[in-house]
Amino acid sequence: MKGAVLFGTRDVRYVEREDSKIVEPTDAIIRMSATCVCGSDLWPYRGIQPITEPTPMGHEYVGIVEEVGSAVRTIKPGQFVIGSFFASDNTCPICQAGYQSRCVNAFPIGALGAQSPYLRVPSASGTLVPTPDLPPDDLIPHLLAASDVLGTGWFAADAAEVGPGKTVAVVGDGAVGLLGVLAAKQMGAERIILMSRHEDRQKLGIEFGATDIVTERGDDGVARIREMTDGLGAHSVIEAVGTQESMMQAIHSTRAGGHVGFVGVTHGVEIPGEELFSAEVHLMGGPAPVRRYLPELIDLIWERNIEPGKVFDLTLPLDEVAEGYRAMDERRAIKTLLTV
Amino acid sequence: MKGAVLFGTRDVRYVEREDSKIVEPTDAIIRMSATCVCGSDLWPYRGIQPITEPTPMGHEYVGIVEEVGSAVRTIKPGQFVIGSFFASDNTCPICQAGYQSRCVNAFPIGALGAQSPYLRVPSASGTLVPTPDLPPDDLIPHLLAASDVLGTGWFAADAAEVGPGKTVAVVGDGAVGLLGVLAAKQMGAERIILMSRHEDRQKLGIEFGATDIVTERGDDGVARIREMTDGLGAHSVIEAVGTQESMMQAIHSTRAGGHVGFVGVTHGVEIPGEELFSAEVHLMGGPAPVRRYLPELIDLIWERNIEPGKVFDLTLPLDEVAEGYRAMDERRAIKTLLTV
Repeated sequence: MKGAVLFGTRDVRYVEREDSKIVEPTDAIIRMSATCVCGSDLWPYRGIQPITEPTPMGHEYVGIVEEVGSAVRTIKPGQFVIGSFFASDNTCPICQAGYQSRCVNAFPIGALGAQSPYLRVPSASGTLVPTPDLPPDDLIPHLLAASDVLGTGWFAADAAEVGPGKTVAVVGDGAVGLLGVLAAKQMGAERIILMSRHEDRQKLGIEFGATDIVTERGDDGVARIREMTDGLGAHSVIEAVGTQESMMQAIHSTRAGGHVGFVGVTHGVEIPGEELFSAEVHLMGGPAPVRRYLPELIDLIWERNIEPGKVFDLTLPLDEVAEGYRAMDERRAIKTLLTV
Repeated sequence: MKGAVLFGTRDVRYVEREDSKIVEPTDAIIRMSATCVCGSDLWPYRGIQPITEPTPMGHEYVGIVEEVGSAVRTIKPGQFVIGSFFASDNTCPICQAGYQSRCVNAFPIGALGAQSPYLRVPSASGTLVPTPDLPPDDLIPHLLAASDVLGTGWFAADAAEVGPGKTVAVVGDGAVGLLGVLAAKQMGAERIILMSRHEDRQKLGIEFGATDIVTERGDDGVARIREMTDGLGAHSVIEAVGTQESMMQAIHSTRAGGHVGFVGVTHGVEIPGEELFSAEVHLMGGPAPVRRYLPELIDLIWERNIEPGKVFDLTLPLDEVAEGYRAMDERRAIKTLLTV
């Protein structure tokens, strides 16, 4: 089959690669309905996270079950399914505690390359969640968003302990930050401050539930958040970038005793212990255990309560994947959906 | 009056200093019953945290209210009281959320020097908690412990979300770590692993409720904790040292989704963002909001359910404070109580 393969910095191609086949009896093969390009795909694409050999790309997926291994019990061919970017058995103590992205048998889907017409999904029984029925076409982008960006924004809001009556600040206006806004709204936040200096993203943030926009960054951004919160800082802060500046901006924007949920894949971040000690905030983050939230998210989408797929502002056929990366790299698109 | 003053590295003297007097109408003056030397006093004593001028020392205290300012309502002369190392109004939004050490009007008692016969306590109504009656002498060490080390160990266990059925690891066998063990026991932990290589401290740890001792440190210590927990790590880890090694030992000893409560005053610590991201643990710490716990701790001590004062293994008159520091610096004592 063909699929997206990264050959070097800014060199992604839709080329022939190995077929997706059942390897373990716990595997399933899905026929892709849609996949997409993630903000985190841009790290290796830009050469910031080096690769050593041609690397299949993609870890977000929705599709129809084509075939299941002999040990798969909970799903069957013909079902429409969604999974997370980490396969998980959903039965180990870590999964049972709700941290499926750190399952003792976790497997990164990224290593299998989901930007392709077929995908092998390990631990299929634990990983894949079927929709109630085959979805109408217009729901597919929303369901695809649940596979990563929605689930990740949702986890960030949950880790930041967003809830009714709280003021939430969101650092980062990419797809994850914007869906952190949507999650905060769903969780009943009173005030949602999106830190953004891009007009199109501000607009979508407001549509998702942001009540305020702050355009300042770094120390100036922190000062604005403090000004807006009686000098105290926000109760909950979502960090959705992954740089030193964004992490410290998030920590310093949070009131003592408040919560930071960080999901931006960290690159070169060093958190000074003294600053964290004196900030006295809760810090929780990492790869989102999207599997924990999938049943609830699918339900919200199926009932048409949320439209997370609005983060896709560019849709291309899978064989034009290279243009999908370019558009995101050049910030012409927030997020690219690839149809199969 | 006289009091303990630090003049330079390892040079603490009991010398004449300014009297403790009411300055603000919200102040109280207490006549010290007992005070003590804190592990954190050793940082400036050892010159690791430099001082620029002769500095009054001490921030732990119990005593009798001698005089109150005109605005003090909740306590009166003659009462026996305990306060924390941060004065707090106990009414601001941060206090109301339980983070009194970061009160918007917080004032560090250390700057006033509690190793003295009298102490000015700012925001006395919010800071001081009276005991039900004048305590018998044998309760005084236990009540004094509540002023910092017990309250700090308790906060660490609380921040680490210790609870029934959980496995807890404690990094650091100083007074705070040992009282973290006691707190974990009170909070119903199933298994409490104390990381210690000092026999006298191991013994006290076991008396306080430790079920296991691990003598290895650093990566070896982490490996032992993982061995003992089916490869997963502890649910809750208390960090009570404040060094790079102890902080990373705590983070890596915690299972994904678990909780680290850190209370060792951090010195030169840098937490690599990538490691924290992949560890996926909750991290919470800072100066303990001891005030939050004082009513409960006083009650436990008053009912003779706990004996935290056992961490004091050296008692000296206040004018021999210099020897109290020396004994702790040379690890001849865990913690020195000073009688007045």
